Amino acid sequence: MSDLHLGQHISRRFNEELEEVRSKVLHMGGIVEGQLANALRVLVNDESALAKDVVSADSIVNSLEVDIDEECTRIVALRQPAATDLRLVMAVTKTINDLERMGDEAKRIARMSRKDMDGALEDDTRSDLEYLGELVREMLRQVLDAFARTDVDTAILVVKADRKVDKKYKKVVKQLVKQMGKDPQVIPQVMNIIWAVRSLERLADRCQNIAEHIIYMVLGMDVRHIDLDDVLAEIEAMSDEE
Amino acid sequence: MSDLHLGQHISRRFNEELEEVRSKVLHMGGIVEGQLANALRVLVNDESALAKDVVSADSIVNSLEVDIDEECTRIVALRQPAATDLRLVMAVTKTINDLERMGDEAKRIARMSRKDMDGALEDDTRSDLEYLGELVREMLRQVLDAFARTDVDTAILVVKADRKVDKKYKKVVKQLVKQMGKDPQVIPQVMNIIWAVRSLERLADRCQNIAEHIIYMVLGMDVRHIDLDDVLAEIEAMSDEE
Repeated sequence: MSDLHLGQHISRRFNEELEEVRSKVLHMGGIVEGQLANALRVLVNDESALAKDVVSADSIVNSLEVDIDEECTRIVALRQPAATDLRLVMAVTKTINDLERMGDEAKRIARMSRKDMDGALEDDTRSDLEYLGELVREMLRQVLDAFARTDVDTAILVVKADRKVDKKYKKVVKQLVKQMGKDPQVIPQVMNIIWAVRSLERLADRCQNIAEHIIYMVLGMDVRHIDLDDVLAEIEAMSDEE
Repeated sequence: MSDLHLGQHISRRFNEELEEVRSKVLHMGGIVEGQLANALRVLVNDESALAKDVVSADSIVNSLEVDIDEECTRIVALRQPAATDLRLVMAVTKTINDLERMGDEAKRIARMSRKDMDGALEDDTRSDLEYLGELVREMLRQVLDAFARTDVDTAILVVKADRKVDKKYKKVVKQLVKQMGKDPQVIPQVMNIIWAVRSLERLADRCQNIAEHIIYMVLGMDVRHIDLDDVLAEIEAMSDEE
């Protein structure tokens, strides 16, 4: 084989490896989506039998994280990726960490709900949880989609959606605190609901993290500590330059 | 300059760069230590004037994270580190993320405490918070020390200490929930204390994460999803092989 052919061969193999990593991340994301969907059904519809599915998926998610992480380190060591490829690998190592933690939060929700919340979960709260849960599911769906299509616009939608979740989260917690005051007998049960809402809010945060990794991956711009409006302005400035 | 000299020169420069990254991480860790110490003084001693120091340190921590992260990506791209060096760089990118989030939690504690907790913070709880805070400070001190000396034994101590924090955390939250039941009028204030305790527990979790990155860095072993006893057994097995 000539050097040129060898070079092409290596670069094709390298691209295949990157594709494999990307598809493993999406596979991992899909499992976490399932965990979240099931955890919400436990929480909102009281389908407690699903809790064990959420828990058992966790070990798959964990080993996928370790697996993908090792693969990324191997790629960096052997393929010495540059520019966009390197940014992809670095973004992946961060994304899988967020996904894994999302799995943990889903587990927490599913477990929490098995404890008795009854007598404390009012209809209004139940629909709030349902609504919040749907928002977070949509964020996760969108952010995985943004990852699959390396699509910054969708990633930005996810960052924006997190603001909506935060607002709703605060409102729900406020209501729950009020409820404890009115009905001190159910305080332990309401606390469990609060922990579940808190987990939902953290799941949304993780989606936002992943969205930021995607923006970094595509644009090479670290947006973690910049205000969203500044990010949008910077992106516009960048496309003006093009 | 001969090729050999050039090679030595590059490798010396590379080592200097790695050293620089390490010392920046320790610098960042030192700032977070300060944030934690101040946040605890706000929480336990009601020295609310310190809250603004915790908040203002946050932007330094944030920009250090971005700075170190960029430096790591640059090193990977230009120096193509292998084996231990690569593991160091990968561990650093994760460690600084944990440190940055610790800064956020410290900020949360400092801000939370400015709200009125008075009339809700009982003496017993205050000493529990003090004790928990000291445990977490010690964990952070130890884990930075373990990082500085790439010392697995100390990192393991940190992982063990996290169990102690978890236990205490659960006990304190239980007490606080009981307190709400007995005295519903102070529920909002007690909730603020609960959020602060929760932040302490999360700070401890982050210390444990960093300890795990150090173990990975030194031994090349991913211990994130292994039980501590299994980790210890594996490490013993490894040193037996040596």
